[in-house]
Amino acid sequence: MEISSLKHKTDSIYSYPISQNEIQIVFLTKKDDDIKKVELMYNEKYKFHEEVFFLDMPKVCDDGVNDYYILRIKLKDKRFAYVFKLTLNNGEIYYFSESGVSNHYDIKKGYYDFFQVSYINSIDTLKINKILQNRVFYQIFVDRFYKDKSNNNPRINISWLDKVDSNTIAGGTLKGIIEKIDYLKDLGINGLYLTPIFKSNTNHKYDTINYYEVSKDFGDEIDLKALINLIHKNDMIVLLDGVYNHVSNLFPYFKDVVKNGNNSKYYDWFFIDGDKVDENRVNYETFASCCYLPRLNLNNIEVQNYILEVAKHYVREYQIDGYRLDVSDEIPHGFWIRFRIELEKINPNIILLGENWHNAHSFLNSGFEFDSIMNYAFTKEILNYVAYNKISAIELKNNLISHLFRYKFNINYNLLNLVSSHDVNRFLDECKNDVDKFLVGYSLLFIYIGVPCIYYGDEIGTDGGYDPYNRACFNWNKDCWNLKIYETIKKLINIHKRECINELDILIESKDDVFILKRFNKNKCITLYTNLSNKDKLIKPIDNILLSNLYIDNILKPSGFLITKEAK
Amino acid sequence: MEISSLKHKTDSIYSYPISQNEIQIVFLTKKDDDIKKVELMYNEKYKFHEEVFFLDMPKVCDDGVNDYYILRIKLKDKRFAYVFKLTLNNGEIYYFSESGVSNHYDIKKGYYDFFQVSYINSIDTLKINKILQNRVFYQIFVDRFYKDKSNNNPRINISWLDKVDSNTIAGGTLKGIIEKIDYLKDLGINGLYLTPIFKSNTNHKYDTINYYEVSKDFGDEIDLKALINLIHKNDMIVLLDGVYNHVSNLFPYFKDVVKNGNNSKYYDWFFIDGDKVDENRVNYETFASCCYLPRLNLNNIEVQNYILEVAKHYVREYQIDGYRLDVSDEIPHGFWIRFRIELEKINPNIILLGENWHNAHSFLNSGFEFDSIMNYAFTKEILNYVAYNKISAIELKNNLISHLFRYKFNINYNLLNLVSSHDVNRFLDECKNDVDKFLVGYSLLFIYIGVPCIYYGDEIGTDGGYDPYNRACFNWNKDCWNLKIYETIKKLINIHKRECINELDILIESKDDVFILKRFNKNKCITLYTNLSNKDKLIKPIDNILLSNLYIDNILKPSGFLITKEAK
Repeated sequence: MEISSLKHKTDSIYSYPISQNEIQIVFLTKKDDDIKKVELMYNEKYKFHEEVFFLDMPKVCDDGVNDYYILRIKLKDKRFAYVFKLTLNNGEIYYFSESGVSNHYDIKKGYYDFFQVSYINSIDTLKINKILQNRVFYQIFVDRFYKDKSNNNPRINISWLDKVDSNTIAGGTLKGIIEKIDYLKDLGINGLYLTPIFKSNTNHKYDTINYYEVSKDFGDEIDLKALINLIHKNDMIVLLDGVYNHVSNLFPYFKDVVKNGNNSKYYDWFFIDGDKVDENRVNYETFASCCYLPRLNLNNIEVQNYILEVAKHYVREYQIDGYRLDVSDEIPHGFWIRFRIELEKINPNIILLGENWHNAHSFLNSGFEFDSIMNYAFTKEILNYVAYNKISAIELKNNLISHLFRYKFNINYNLLNLVSSHDVNRFLDECKNDVDKFLVGYSLLFIYIGVPCIYYGDEIGTDGGYDPYNRACFNWNKDCWNLKIYETIKKLINIHKRECINELDILIESKDDVFILKRFNKNKCITLYTNLSNKDKLIKPIDNILLSNLYIDNILKPSGFLITKEAK
Repeated sequence: MEISSLKHKTDSIYSYPISQNEIQIVFLTKKDDDIKKVELMYNEKYKFHEEVFFLDMPKVCDDGVNDYYILRIKLKDKRFAYVFKLTLNNGEIYYFSESGVSNHYDIKKGYYDFFQVSYINSIDTLKINKILQNRVFYQIFVDRFYKDKSNNNPRINISWLDKVDSNTIAGGTLKGIIEKIDYLKDLGINGLYLTPIFKSNTNHKYDTINYYEVSKDFGDEIDLKALINLIHKNDMIVLLDGVYNHVSNLFPYFKDVVKNGNNSKYYDWFFIDGDKVDENRVNYETFASCCYLPRLNLNNIEVQNYILEVAKHYVREYQIDGYRLDVSDEIPHGFWIRFRIELEKINPNIILLGENWHNAHSFLNSGFEFDSIMNYAFTKEILNYVAYNKISAIELKNNLISHLFRYKFNINYNLLNLVSSHDVNRFLDECKNDVDKFLVGYSLLFIYIGVPCIYYGDEIGTDGGYDPYNRACFNWNKDCWNLKIYETIKKLINIHKRECINELDILIESKDDVFILKRFNKNKCITLYTNLSNKDKLIKPIDNILLSNLYIDNILKPSGFLITKEAK
């Protein structure tokens, strides 16, 4: 047995409550180690020193490196103590506790060594977000979605379908979105994420000049209220883009610092190296290396309070359902916990979704910060598997299983899965316009655990490489649409919602070159098979082809990923 | 190379800022794996795709299972991306990133895979608590410390030095502590932790009846103010015991529920199974199985607000320096983050110290909850090594190193180390009255990283087994003291403060049967050697014997635990 590979820790991704009386215990060993049996030796915390009971831990999956032994346990008492008892193939017995591996375990002195669920507190129990469940999101880059007829903004500098560049103002508006709500509804969308809409000089508006003013390029506050009302009337929800990492260099407080240096009362709102701003030398911190985007100092309590008021304003006055949070991983955790506490006072169901490209365990697992992130880890796997042929079916299985266990399990249901966005090449471009591959990717998106999100235009076959080319104007001329893509995605949306895919359990497998994704409950099992190793065998999603590969079976229930047992 | 043993994760105990421009990177492999070299391949986050640099990661220690490669790096930019490059003894090269192990790493697509320090935010940077540094704590069980002459409390039911039992009221008071401040000051104490002092019928007072009333057994609010003033006047600090997990069954709101069942407005303040309290059946949650200690429901926002007001009251009105928090691991994290936020508004340096017996990573590493815990993990190791001879010098080294890396490094400086308390047998009892062993344990306590805490009476050789016998009355008759113990502990306190032990770096080693603890900075090195394998060779601390084994060397600086390099 490889002792250095054993992984478990209390109050972590390996051990946590999933409901008021149920815990999940995850224990990792080296894959295919010479372990015959893993048992949980347990009792209520305050009785462990008197007597222990045993439960078999089933090995339920592996990620190519580790075997995962997982058990869900219904508890009688909410305080639970346990130790892993490991029986090797040669009959040797070891105990794995908080103190490591030993060949003997003295339960009488156990309180020093056992693992524990110290108590199941309801407010610490991460739940599947009911508001996010059965949602299909649609990300709108506002300037490029729809230009309402009345828009005669003199800043518009191209005709609608011209090729865009970084300086393009195309003329999309909030009224434009209002006019196209029926299109979105017909497509099956019930969640919107809008890129930023507040005063700014750019088309993308990630450079805020005034957080309290809707950009005149897009409309006004009345349009925003009308749009949000219409969204809610149509049983949709909406996330605005919360851009708090940085502002525009034209933001009044930054201009005040440019003018007054360290005499400005906003000097500490930014990170200035020296007494005054030198715009040539760019002696202030910026987003990436964009000199027009000075970073806000959210370590400063005044700045925190200012941004909190901004964020609260749109929740209180406009009833938005939440925020997608830009560059969220560069902003202090200490700000995000205040952010959640303050916004929950206005809307206890507020949705906070971080733009975290990397392992976001420290933003998600506590429950104090975000409900969700843009799941670019999923994007990466889909690109490597579908678009680049860089990984095989078994590698996809291994990687996705590894990603699933970054987070406490319920969090996976809340993650926003995507294959395209304004920050990456469009997925069709990544697939080199291979529509079959593209639709395999979208099928995986819609059957996988989490909330699928379509980047505006992907559903009609909009192409485009990296920024700014991934931000083309939506072509409303249906004759130009790729109808195969459109119809397939529409069906996938329908299946996702009809079958309540995101309420189902998940099982990920691979066999030879086939990747197998099962979603199931006790009544049904939906199975997606994909095979990319042979172009002729490519599983084309939807229609007769996908339908022969997407099974909805009302009888079969797989033996299951997660097993629940009752504690004595 | 054992891939399943590699351990690293961003924004965790493996990767975190330790100051405004410095990060610590920890990377674990299987001990003695066939790895020739570990290098950090790195650049600023937004430049990583263009170019990378390399730094050697030194192997600095092991815990018997894992090798620890650790590097502290001074950054130019606060956003840092990195991947581990591993060269095996056979020359093979591997890369370990957030996506696992590969034999090739494409830096151009690196943003999907690299590890990162997303940004060093000052408010997220855990610091060594300056208020706790160079403190020597003393825990007082108030009823048993000193009975001031004026105390004629009719509830006193023994003579001062009689054997105590669970129902003993001996007569110790706050005034008694006031009278003995000079004793504590002379001993060298500069931090006090008082067990609970508020209205309750027991001697221990962990069953609060009124959080706003000092127990008449101990004095009154005027005494408390006088005591705290005197403590502060003597450059000491004081922690009160915050007992919020449960109250007395005589707590008025619980009595209201007993009377009115679910018609009581306090029904949801507790966890009642059924419409009304059945005191025979004990159909309510309690601390452990103590029916007279009903648990408070701190998931309930009303209860949170009530307890917050209680806690704020003594910080605001009495200027206490912080709280030791009873049964802290059964109380919701969601409450503790509010607790910290609210108390920091009154005292930004408030000290919050949890009673967490187990790995408290989820209470300490975020910085949102506690500064410190009662470090019973250290207690356990000292018991196993010194008192029980259960572990060898090398096992002590391994276990302590493993404990050090449970937490972000600076946290170790804040932990309250102890070998005795009101909740465990006195250390002298555990040592079966072997004074030499006892003093080896106390020497380790005073030289180890963290804040040492003496349980009242240990310093004069007070004996006693488990509760209630560990709570004997302090014998103020100096003729009865064990002067060897008293003088040794006094010298250890003096050394600890004079040498500013807890500002020093730490190095833990073992050689044959000798355990070696080094504390050092660039100017000096203090080394403690202990050898328990041979009673004749037992290193007796202090006096001529310890002094030959506790070296204070102004020249030697060990090659070091933690190495700092500068990033390009």
